[in-house]
Amino acid sequence: MSTETQRELGVAMIGYAFMGAAHSQGWRTAPHFFDLPLRPAMRVVAGRNPDGVAAAAEKLGWSESSTSWSELLERDDIDLIDICTPGDSHRDIALAALAAGKHVLCEKPLANSVAEAQEMADAAERAAARGVVAMVGFTYRRVPAIQLARSLVEQGRLGTIQHVRAQYLQDWLADSRAPLTWRLDKEKAGSGALGDIGAHIIDLTQFITGQQITNVSGALKTFVSERPIAEDLSGLSGTAGTDMGPVTVDDAAVFLAELSGGALGVYEATRFAHGRKNAIRIEINGSRGSLAFDFEDMNVLHFFDATEPSETGGFRRIVVTEPEHAYVANWWPAGHGLGYEHGFTHQVVDLVTAIAQGTRPSPSFTDGLYVQRVLDAVERSSHSRAGWTEV
Amino acid sequence: MSTETQRELGVAMIGYAFMGAAHSQGWRTAPHFFDLPLRPAMRVVAGRNPDGVAAAAEKLGWSESSTSWSELLERDDIDLIDICTPGDSHRDIALAALAAGKHVLCEKPLANSVAEAQEMADAAERAAARGVVAMVGFTYRRVPAIQLARSLVEQGRLGTIQHVRAQYLQDWLADSRAPLTWRLDKEKAGSGALGDIGAHIIDLTQFITGQQITNVSGALKTFVSERPIAEDLSGLSGTAGTDMGPVTVDDAAVFLAELSGGALGVYEATRFAHGRKNAIRIEINGSRGSLAFDFEDMNVLHFFDATEPSETGGFRRIVVTEPEHAYVANWWPAGHGLGYEHGFTHQVVDLVTAIAQGTRPSPSFTDGLYVQRVLDAVERSSHSRAGWTEV
Amino acid sequence: MSTETQRELGVAMIGYAFMGAAHSQGWRTAPHFFDLPLRPAMRVVAGRNPDGVAAAAEKLGWSESSTSWSELLERDDIDLIDICTPGDSHRDIALAALAAGKHVLCEKPLANSVAEAQEMADAAERAAARGVVAMVGFTYRRVPAIQLARSLVEQGRLGTIQHVRAQYLQDWLADSRAPLTWRLDKEKAGSGALGDIGAHIIDLTQFITGQQITNVSGALKTFVSERPIAEDLSGLSGTAGTDMGPVTVDDAAVFLAELSGGALGVYEATRFAHGRKNAIRIEINGSRGSLAFDFEDMNVLHFFDATEPSETGGFRRIVVTEPEHAYVANWWPAGHGLGYEHGFTHQVVDLVTAIAQGTRPSPSFTDGLYVQRVLDAVERSSHSRAGWTEV
Amino acid sequence: MSTETQRELGVAMIGYAFMGAAHSQGWRTAPHFFDLPLRPAMRVVAGRNPDGVAAAAEKLGWSESSTSWSELLERDDIDLIDICTPGDSHRDIALAALAAGKHVLCEKPLANSVAEAQEMADAAERAAARGVVAMVGFTYRRVPAIQLARSLVEQGRLGTIQHVRAQYLQDWLADSRAPLTWRLDKEKAGSGALGDIGAHIIDLTQFITGQQITNVSGALKTFVSERPIAEDLSGLSGTAGTDMGPVTVDDAAVFLAELSGGALGVYEATRFAHGRKNAIRIEINGSRGSLAFDFEDMNVLHFFDATEPSETGGFRRIVVTEPEHAYVANWWPAGHGLGYEHGFTHQVVDLVTAIAQGTRPSPSFTDGLYVQRVLDAVERSSHSRAGWTEV
Repeated sequence: MSTETQRELGVAMIGYAFMGAAHSQGWRTAPHFFDLPLRPAMRVVAGRNPDGVAAAAEKLGWSESSTSWSELLERDDIDLIDICTPGDSHRDIALAALAAGKHVLCEKPLANSVAEAQEMADAAERAAARGVVAMVGFTYRRVPAIQLARSLVEQGRLGTIQHVRAQYLQDWLADSRAPLTWRLDKEKAGSGALGDIGAHIIDLTQFITGQQITNVSGALKTFVSERPIAEDLSGLSGTAGTDMGPVTVDDAAVFLAELSGGALGVYEATRFAHGRKNAIRIEINGSRGSLAFDFEDMNVLHFFDATEPSETGGFRRIVVTEPEHAYVANWWPAGHGLGYEHGFTHQVVDLVTAIAQGTRPSPSFTDGLYVQRVLDAVERSSHSRAGWTEV
Repeated sequence: MSTETQRELGVAMIGYAFMGAAHSQGWRTAPHFFDLPLRPAMRVVAGRNPDGVAAAAEKLGWSESSTSWSELLERDDIDLIDICTPGDSHRDIALAALAAGKHVLCEKPLANSVAEAQEMADAAERAAARGVVAMVGFTYRRVPAIQLARSLVEQGRLGTIQHVRAQYLQDWLADSRAPLTWRLDKEKAGSGALGDIGAHIIDLTQFITGQQITNVSGALKTFVSERPIAEDLSGLSGTAGTDMGPVTVDDAAVFLAELSGGALGVYEATRFAHGRKNAIRIEINGSRGSLAFDFEDMNVLHFFDATEPSETGGFRRIVVTEPEHAYVANWWPAGHGLGYEHGFTHQVVDLVTAIAQGTRPSPSFTDGLYVQRVLDAVERSSHSRAGWTEV
Repeated sequence: MSTETQRELGVAMIGYAFMGAAHSQGWRTAPHFFDLPLRPAMRVVAGRNPDGVAAAAEKLGWSESSTSWSELLERDDIDLIDICTPGDSHRDIALAALAAGKHVLCEKPLANSVAEAQEMADAAERAAARGVVAMVGFTYRRVPAIQLARSLVEQGRLGTIQHVRAQYLQDWLADSRAPLTWRLDKEKAGSGALGDIGAHIIDLTQFITGQQITNVSGALKTFVSERPIAEDLSGLSGTAGTDMGPVTVDDAAVFLAELSGGALGVYEATRFAHGRKNAIRIEINGSRGSLAFDFEDMNVLHFFDATEPSETGGFRRIVVTEPEHAYVANWWPAGHGLGYEHGFTHQVVDLVTAIAQGTRPSPSFTDGLYVQRVLDAVERSSHSRAGWTEV
Repeated sequence: MSTETQRELGVAMIGYAFMGAAHSQGWRTAPHFFDLPLRPAMRVVAGRNPDGVAAAAEKLGWSESSTSWSELLERDDIDLIDICTPGDSHRDIALAALAAGKHVLCEKPLANSVAEAQEMADAAERAAARGVVAMVGFTYRRVPAIQLARSLVEQGRLGTIQHVRAQYLQDWLADSRAPLTWRLDKEKAGSGALGDIGAHIIDLTQFITGQQITNVSGALKTFVSERPIAEDLSGLSGTAGTDMGPVTVDDAAVFLAELSGGALGVYEATRFAHGRKNAIRIEINGSRGSLAFDFEDMNVLHFFDATEPSETGGFRRIVVTEPEHAYVANWWPAGHGLGYEHGFTHQVVDLVTAIAQGTRPSPSFTDGLYVQRVLDAVERSSHSRAGWTEV
């Protein structure tokens, strides 16, 4: 429990859109449910629009607002920079922050290119030697059902992993009149479905299986090449205007994959799957059992134990809300499920704990770099219709 | 496997509507998938309409047709009478058949009153002494998932049964313009949803738990009291005419129940549950585990084993299509599910086997009588708003 | 958006266990996602144990702690009393608070008896004349899927409601060694499963259908009459000691119901349904369609529209996370589901809005009283085995 | 309805294992539920083992048995040859039968190579000119839910198809000690999971979408390269002996696909997905809606109509058992679901009807050839790690 003398961790956040709101909820909520070794102080939120960022500070619970992230790096009362901007600014902010001795939490994907990600990972390694840590925000790892999946694989309950089947399906672009936002602009976003949502299933499946994707054979597709330019933004969408602009990223990405432990993977990420709202669907088949997860039912993990007698064997629908499950004991009684944003609270807990303990939090920038390399391999495989491509 | 010298079992069936078609498929199919100790010979189908019954004979695979069921009882080549008529004729046919030394398979509910059912059960007892057997057609018992449910309870996998939750939901009367058929006529059908479909969940839950319903507290309800008289019948429905007639049975039946082993039951049968087509839903909770079944997914049984560690405990979705499951080894490979009518084939297998072995098949007329007594207690409780009523 | 000059609403909360934590999260979170017309100020949390309540204040985000709830009523900076204690103290606190001119939010069930609830409802009526409001905390109403259910019924999409089927299934007492806590003590809790969880499905089904339960026929059952006395409490459970004590409440409650609009209801509440963690399951069948909900998949509502052609008719699995759905636009993009605690935030939003607008929030103490009368009728019906009993 | 003067269709079946049993059930059952324009006469079953085939004739309902399929081609009372043997004999039997003027029904995959399939398709074209028809047995097309899927796409209810996602998952080889059977021998079976089960999802998705797969990029994998030689065969499995033999086919096949109408496909077939028994899972996303099907719940089709208001939009769980659905009116009332084998009855109905009407049944040998070309392209892509490969 926090005390008078508990040390504070001064936090500044850059960006205040969808991810900024989610991260803020994490920073605000964590101390009320978990006993943190450091007390997060939500000092500053930074952004380019002075009115916007000032309003965000009040709404999201930050003490101050700023229009200059670089100034924040000079402040002694800021210990950690939380990067919630689009991917094109991740590298600059992260490098500067680490150089200034600030811990960094950076939203995924780590960067818009392998080269940028490599610089960041290298910088994180150097910073670690000075006790400064860096983490990339693959928050879905911190859904209790995903933690249980990882644990079952680690315990050997699945045996040798043979199949990985992963889909991230959304439908918010299936309407061809949905407006053009920064997520459809290659300069800002790096890629489309591939980096935005495909990155999550790459990370999740590598995390769960403990294997790395070593080779891919993929295809990217843009179904709608031109859209009305957005005039007013909120959340993932906005209001369509009358002028049209080009979509410069993929609408969908599919790829086959070979994993380091011999598993065969099939991946698909799309925003064109009508009726699927945020369906992160992962199935793992191993020699001793199988797992299945769908974020649309996020408090549940399905587990098939092939060592059961076949008369009573079946996928178990585990409601992952028991005190034994990761993070759950700090929340509610069994069956009182968590929601999307809880992962951001868990992220704060794990990050703050690592900082206090002097350990390096996971996933690291090196993990983020590896995901970036997989994304890059899929793009290379796709653009040249090259088939199998090494990561 | 059948041989030249295999003894035949001459069968005559009375009635050739929905149940007649289902029974015929059972008689036709059983020998091709199971090794029967007697070879069923589909000798005669009987009915009142000469043209109708002649057409049925050809369509359903019976060698002859007849308009007089009583004549069939005098034939030496008829060993078994299969009664598929509405409930108002069950008693007369069954008593005569047993008296004539014919084995009897009688559709459920056994009769339209306890008095009739009692006579039939008494006659069956007397007949048994002469080696003549009688069985009532609660075929849903013979769905492999139901057999597995029974087996798990018998093995003690559920511990002491505490809750029984049973619903039989259909929607074919939810449209107030659906026509009046014999199933809505108390004279013919005895009761409405209560006896037609409620009887099934009474039988199934008693079968699975091995307990009897001893007290009930119920209510019957008729939502639509008048309907257009049917002109042309097929399956469960028909074409509505312009004349109206009174509905004299219940549209829905609900009741609480106490079971002999201390379980508390909640039962509901209705034909007014829009969107539920043939949803026989049964849940059993015991001190060591739980079961759940829904006939709309009839090849699946859900089983929760409370002795599992809670970290990995969950309802198992058992796909009941493994060779270890009842009846399944004679059909298809795992996952190649069975349908509604397979229960009728299993019924033939079990009945013919009992006859050949000289054992008494189950469920007996006494079992059918007990269901009738439960139905009667529900009616008594309901009509007088009497609350708890002894069976 | 809140401004410098925004008026504050001073809040004090009594009790800080499970419900206190949930209410606190609501008070803390609401201003960050919703534009509230008043700014809630979390002034004081009160409780009997000085150390416990002081720790709770810090953990849950209250400025001060107090061991005397009555003193709080004299403070001018407290506008609202939020009652999160067991049911035996609801009446005293609420009456005093209303008399002192404080708005009241009271956890459900409203009281431990109809007499108490009646006093409270009367007091709330009198207070309303003075502009002081009272609300009872049936938060499940504020799950977006439940709001949609209510809206569909209101719009007539279900036609005339004919069946209500409601279950609240938990399993935390299924283990006979689970310890004795205040929820198993009739003096503290009023009743067992009936009032604790049965109250929720009574309220929810009355809310969704717009009908009142007028008659009930029920049964209560205590499966385990003696349990080890709890030594250390957390959440719903605790650590079992070695001394045994009597369970003085019901473990399970079942009842049939007649509703004011002609619907037939079947209700069941139990904490003995192994594998069901917090399964609030509600099905409504009407002449034009059906609804189904299960809190174990709380972001989903199933809706069957019987006016669809039968070729393509089917229960629609509506993922209730679209901006059009109640409360959702203030949270996350589609498919990023909410969790259990969000209802408490919505409760704050609705209550604060009503206070600012000078309207009376819903559900009122009169609504809470009516639920109490239903609970009482079920108890009367059960204890005398009386069958149908008027509410 | 059949009459005295109804013309017969003499049928001979070659092979009597799993597929022989399924086809026999189709031939036996069709006349009892459907009004066929020709009366199938089950004349002869042929096979190499005299005792085995004689027993099969009796068990499966064929009048005679034969050890020489070629002799049957000379008989005037045989009008149709039904080929149920492994793939390596399809070409010889089909060519001879068509040359002899016999109609042919051939199990899938059509042949073990494109060259063989091409010969067969050419022969079928020539035969058609003489009024002799040929059909390939992709029976899953005749599941009512699949027919509904096809119909919805044809009606434009899905708009432009953008994604095809198809998996055929089984687990009967996941146990590395499962014995070696002919299905694991490339000489007999042509390929492994690819041709055996992958062929089905290729055919089904082409059928539903009305598009052809034009390019593929795939991978085949054999997880277990050596298995115990089977000693006793039944169904899909057998008893493992002590000698080991090589697995010469793929255990799993995955591929990306481009379809002729612009859709992007992802396909996966495996027998190593523990817990998935016969999961044929197909999802189609189009610009106006989506479909989802899983054979483990074969009487259900899920349909999302994107033209619905988003407040009430959702995947509809259509129970495909209404009289309006293909084939269903001839079976049972709504909700009384069909099983695996019903497709074989529907196949007989469609084939016999086409023969009587002088039309060409579907799927044709040309359709079967096209599937074979897709299989071949996947093999070519896989064996050379070639990436995208034209069909």
